[in-house]
Amino acid sequence: MVKKIIIDTDPGIDDATAISLALRSPELEVIGLTSVFGNAKGEVTAQNALRLVELEGHDSVPVARGSDVPLIIPLEALGTMVHGEDGMGNTNPPPPKGKLLDAHAAEFIIQMIRSNPGKVTLVPIGPLTNIALALKLDPGIVGLVDEVVLMGGTLSCPGNISPVAEANIYHDPHAADLVLRAGWPLVMVGLDVTQEVFMTRAYLDEIYQADNPATNLMRKILPIYQKFHDGFFGLGGDIHTHDPSAIVYLLAPHLFHTQSVAVFVETEGRCMGQTVADWHHQWGDRPEVKVCMNVQANEVLALIKERLVK
Amino acid sequence: MVKKIIIDTDPGIDDATAISLALRSPELEVIGLTSVFGNAKGEVTAQNALRLVELEGHDSVPVARGSDVPLIIPLEALGTMVHGEDGMGNTNPPPPKGKLLDAHAAEFIIQMIRSNPGKVTLVPIGPLTNIALALKLDPGIVGLVDEVVLMGGTLSCPGNISPVAEANIYHDPHAADLVLRAGWPLVMVGLDVTQEVFMTRAYLDEIYQADNPATNLMRKILPIYQKFHDGFFGLGGDIHTHDPSAIVYLLAPHLFHTQSVAVFVETEGRCMGQTVADWHHQWGDRPEVKVCMNVQANEVLALIKERLVK
Repeated sequence: MVKKIIIDTDPGIDDATAISLALRSPELEVIGLTSVFGNAKGEVTAQNALRLVELEGHDSVPVARGSDVPLIIPLEALGTMVHGEDGMGNTNPPPPKGKLLDAHAAEFIIQMIRSNPGKVTLVPIGPLTNIALALKLDPGIVGLVDEVVLMGGTLSCPGNISPVAEANIYHDPHAADLVLRAGWPLVMVGLDVTQEVFMTRAYLDEIYQADNPATNLMRKILPIYQKFHDGFFGLGGDIHTHDPSAIVYLLAPHLFHTQSVAVFVETEGRCMGQTVADWHHQWGDRPEVKVCMNVQANEVLALIKERLVK
Repeated sequence: MVKKIIIDTDPGIDDATAISLALRSPELEVIGLTSVFGNAKGEVTAQNALRLVELEGHDSVPVARGSDVPLIIPLEALGTMVHGEDGMGNTNPPPPKGKLLDAHAAEFIIQMIRSNPGKVTLVPIGPLTNIALALKLDPGIVGLVDEVVLMGGTLSCPGNISPVAEANIYHDPHAADLVLRAGWPLVMVGLDVTQEVFMTRAYLDEIYQADNPATNLMRKILPIYQKFHDGFFGLGGDIHTHDPSAIVYLLAPHLFHTQSVAVFVETEGRCMGQTVADWHHQWGDRPEVKVCMNVQANEVLALIKERLVK
């Protein structure tokens, strides 16, 4: 059965690959993109979302723009050091042809879930502001989604934007906490697994040989991302596979080992944005979510390549 | 060469084993115990420290009582659920014969370091209040200690008193942060290794056969500690080896693999007491400390047994 998904995204270099991967996968029907600030400003990520559906002729996929700022904390950190001011590696992409929906991302998400009860999977791969707003506007969606599969957080690894925080969670910790405690079926695809899946330079070179719009865009926009990974992690041109791993989870969940645990988000102080697992129920009752703790990395990479080069 | 050590301690069930282990090791000269609140009230841990030097005739080892409360936070959590109200498993031990020194623990520590420059190793196995006070009274001791080898903290494991915090650090996070940033040679022996060293029931039974004052005390006081470990971790009577592991580090540092990193302590909010490694220098300059990340557990256990049964 084809899975109806909404990707909530802040494109963003790895978002671009994730979106191409989803649009090229027959098991998934992308019924919309919703955009959010994060890797770049909200006005930028919205335009990139349009660009990405147009890249290979999926212009009919609607795009709704969402939040430009976090729920509570001021807008401070953006991912432009990693993704470029334009979220596309400072490659100055041409303007998109299409137009954004009139609805706010949160409203669009609610409409889609309400008109497809039990059928929609939300796939947030950016800050969780839109998803939290949708929850606040219509708490009833909790019982109506198929699943929420998000890229974000970390339980066992250091953070990538602070010593304890992963970037998507850090950009809006209050929203992330609302989403993680909502009580809906939720899978967290975090650094615990995404940092185990390495796209090496050799792997990327093979992908680039496909010479199609998706892989050509990757070749164009990835250098800044590789440079960040090299500077921060010393990866010499290899990169972690963040957002695409969430899409692979939708296609092949058996490649991931998950554990169920209540996850809290620190919303204050120096540890802001940290996702904390409460293994021993010390911080009170909270619904458990599934957290991906291990991954069959080679199989994930093989699947991504298969889809991107076809 | 015999190492002169001061054990700063809150006995405490595993403290008792650690102290016996140290007193029975010819490589170590215990030049004093200093006591601190933690596993039980300060008045209780001071008396226990006296009892423990008297247990096998080491009455000449001086004991100085230190702080009854943390530096900044109010006294709330004590380890009495794990160690008993009397810190000795609710076994109602007889009063000690000896007397405490007149000096405060922090003053005693400074005196000992000043009169043995470069020769004293501090071994804090409780909350770090006394050590932080000594630092504040006489910052010059930083350059005069041989080393500080502390039991506390965790980088890679969940906490044992909160989802993120180890108990010794949690009991006085401000003191711990002062100690970790002081710039002296410091080794952190935390849950990353102490939870890898399991004293199983079979191991304990073998030790108890020695039938000496140290092992008889262990047999008497350990049941409450085993019960806690079973309830919290489901260990079925086995226990983690916390404080004794710090003593083993002094005897056989080659059994531990360490990594150097700056460690910060969260002093506020829900993550209070968390020890955070700043691997990528995101939180500013701070001297690195050595953190034990791996341990040869069987060798550690063999050494402990050898010393306790002889």
